Amino acid sequence: MSDTEYHRTLGIGKAAFDSLTEHMEDRSYDGLEYRHVPDYRRGVERGTALIAGEVVRGFPKIPRTLVLETGIPNWFDDVVVVEEKLNGYNVRFARIDGDVLAFSRSGMVCPFTTRFIDRLVDLDPLFDAHPEAMVCGEMIGPENPYTAHDYPDVDSLAFRAFDWRDRQSGDPLPVDERRARYDRFDIPQTQYFGSYDVDDAAGEVDRIVRDLEAEDREGVVMKSPDGTELLKYTTSAANQGDLAYAFSLPFDYGQAFMFRRLIREAFQTIERGESDERASERAHELGEAILLSMRDSIQTVEEGGSVGERHTVRASTETIDVLFDHLRGQGLQIEVEDDRREDGDRVVTFCKRTQATNDKIENYLEGHIVKE
Amino acid sequence: MSDTEYHRTLGIGKAAFDSLTEHMEDRSYDGLEYRHVPDYRRGVERGTALIAGEVVRGFPKIPRTLVLETGIPNWFDDVVVVEEKLNGYNVRFARIDGDVLAFSRSGMVCPFTTRFIDRLVDLDPLFDAHPEAMVCGEMIGPENPYTAHDYPDVDSLAFRAFDWRDRQSGDPLPVDERRARYDRFDIPQTQYFGSYDVDDAAGEVDRIVRDLEAEDREGVVMKSPDGTELLKYTTSAANQGDLAYAFSLPFDYGQAFMFRRLIREAFQTIERGESDERASERAHELGEAILLSMRDSIQTVEEGGSVGERHTVRASTETIDVLFDHLRGQGLQIEVEDDRREDGDRVVTFCKRTQATNDKIENYLEGHIVKE
Repeated sequence: MSDTEYHRTLGIGKAAFDSLTEHMEDRSYDGLEYRHVPDYRRGVERGTALIAGEVVRGFPKIPRTLVLETGIPNWFDDVVVVEEKLNGYNVRFARIDGDVLAFSRSGMVCPFTTRFIDRLVDLDPLFDAHPEAMVCGEMIGPENPYTAHDYPDVDSLAFRAFDWRDRQSGDPLPVDERRARYDRFDIPQTQYFGSYDVDDAAGEVDRIVRDLEAEDREGVVMKSPDGTELLKYTTSAANQGDLAYAFSLPFDYGQAFMFRRLIREAFQTIERGESDERASERAHELGEAILLSMRDSIQTVEEGGSVGERHTVRASTETIDVLFDHLRGQGLQIEVEDDRREDGDRVVTFCKRTQATNDKIENYLEGHIVKE
Repeated sequence: MSDTEYHRTLGIGKAAFDSLTEHMEDRSYDGLEYRHVPDYRRGVERGTALIAGEVVRGFPKIPRTLVLETGIPNWFDDVVVVEEKLNGYNVRFARIDGDVLAFSRSGMVCPFTTRFIDRLVDLDPLFDAHPEAMVCGEMIGPENPYTAHDYPDVDSLAFRAFDWRDRQSGDPLPVDERRARYDRFDIPQTQYFGSYDVDDAAGEVDRIVRDLEAEDREGVVMKSPDGTELLKYTTSAANQGDLAYAFSLPFDYGQAFMFRRLIREAFQTIERGESDERASERAHELGEAILLSMRDSIQTVEEGGSVGERHTVRASTETIDVLFDHLRGQGLQIEVEDDRREDGDRVVTFCKRTQATNDKIENYLEGHIVKE
């Protein structure tokens, strides 16, 4: 497809497309050259990929409210559908030139997920019936190369669909239709909590979020029934879990990332009308997430170890090889810490070394002087 | 003085001076035009002022160590002099055209401090004997228009000298000579703890800092005996106090400001080898400083109030008038909350409204959607 046709398909002008192409990354997957939009840009979703003459739309950024009671009626008209937001990594599947490919949030083809999905679900009947579909969902579970989180019913890695969009336009199916279709094709989906009148939704969502919190789950995505309007809200467990993780690698995570999660906690304690006692408890948990995580990492470095993002994956030898090639191809420093065979699979524990945190902690311990 | 002469006096080339002038601010004080360097720039200290043909050097930024045991021997050769770092605002006094003027950290003439200092100390004998002196110190105490902090021996506002430099070159006096001179002129000084061999200094400073911490004081400045090398270290009380203050105005304080103080706490708990129990206690205090401060501010806004930096000052009517003119001249929004007379003085409580925090808290409470 020529650039002219791409800009028409994306629904943006030629000038806008030309300026967009300057920010696109060129990559190749299995001999196929493609381009993608790795960052947020005006006019087109982050993660949009142009590949083999096809457009694969990025998944839209989901806006967030800090206060349910006021945010929900601001955002929705009549009815709010509530589903679970899962803590894993976002993936979109599309069939390109006969092959089902997995696209990451930023629009890269993920060779690991592309291969691994076959174990979990058979997407062929779906794409035979709907070749223009984009299957959107989350890869969750502990044996996860990007974002590991435990779910009681997931031993290794699982897929949960949460959206179905047109690959080219990005338009979603209405929630009911989407859920019925995934059921028909036997694709597991994210948990559905219910559909509520906008005036009752804040109370219902609060109840759901508290239940999720008790199970250390992430939160909810609220949707208009037609699937076009999305709004998210997360549990305190997710906020604090993110903070603990970020502060274990304090010089590699953005300060804005940390700050936003602190702010969410403050508005949540206010909206819930927590007593001084309960607010202090929350403050203590928050303080532990921050300080004790940093303390652990500094101790690790002090004792000669190194810190980083540690993951375990279980897959075929070939899938694991392409995963490591893929990660190293992005400039990540991968240290394999354990590599064993189990029931015909390779089970590998590896660490993505986070340079800044290791270096800065070491420097400060050695008495590096700060001229801040 | 022409610009040519200024660049010679500053000891920088003409090109460097020309590029510096682009970043200088033009101001006037009492009909006297002057320029100053408001930000950190290469080649000359922030706060340097060019006034009436004279150069008034900015006070140098004091570097910091996060770890005493390694940082002190990295920075100093043989002997380390330890003095108290006070929590107030930094001021430099110089005599220009016969008048003693007070310069703020950023190089502005502060009309409040210029007038107020006469109540506290008589600088004239000092400047008669040493017209080129720059008297550097901290204005401390609760009735403070910039940085209020309680000190047991200060009811309103007091001055403590901590350095004596040449106004033009910025060169300091050796510590002993400086202390002797200030004594001679009856100028109160910052607390002197002692002079230690570099190998013993970390232990001594740790002991001093723990004592200061117990009294909710800020920390220490370590110096080489000749006064040229400086290094600072702060108490946990200061870190946490700063955090509580910053998080009470979360959208007006820089995230880097907050982050740095969290990092300091982490290295302090490590250097002190704190037990899990003690580290958890520190984490809880830290969490309270963060969350409960935000909670208070959100509650205040929720109840229709507004948050900001609240200060009380006690001075003559004229001094208070020039203070408010000065603050408003910098674009600050000042709300007078209380204005009364006491023993011939005006005692005014005012609030510097911090727009971002008030606006953002209000927006989020109203259900403003975040597209982060």
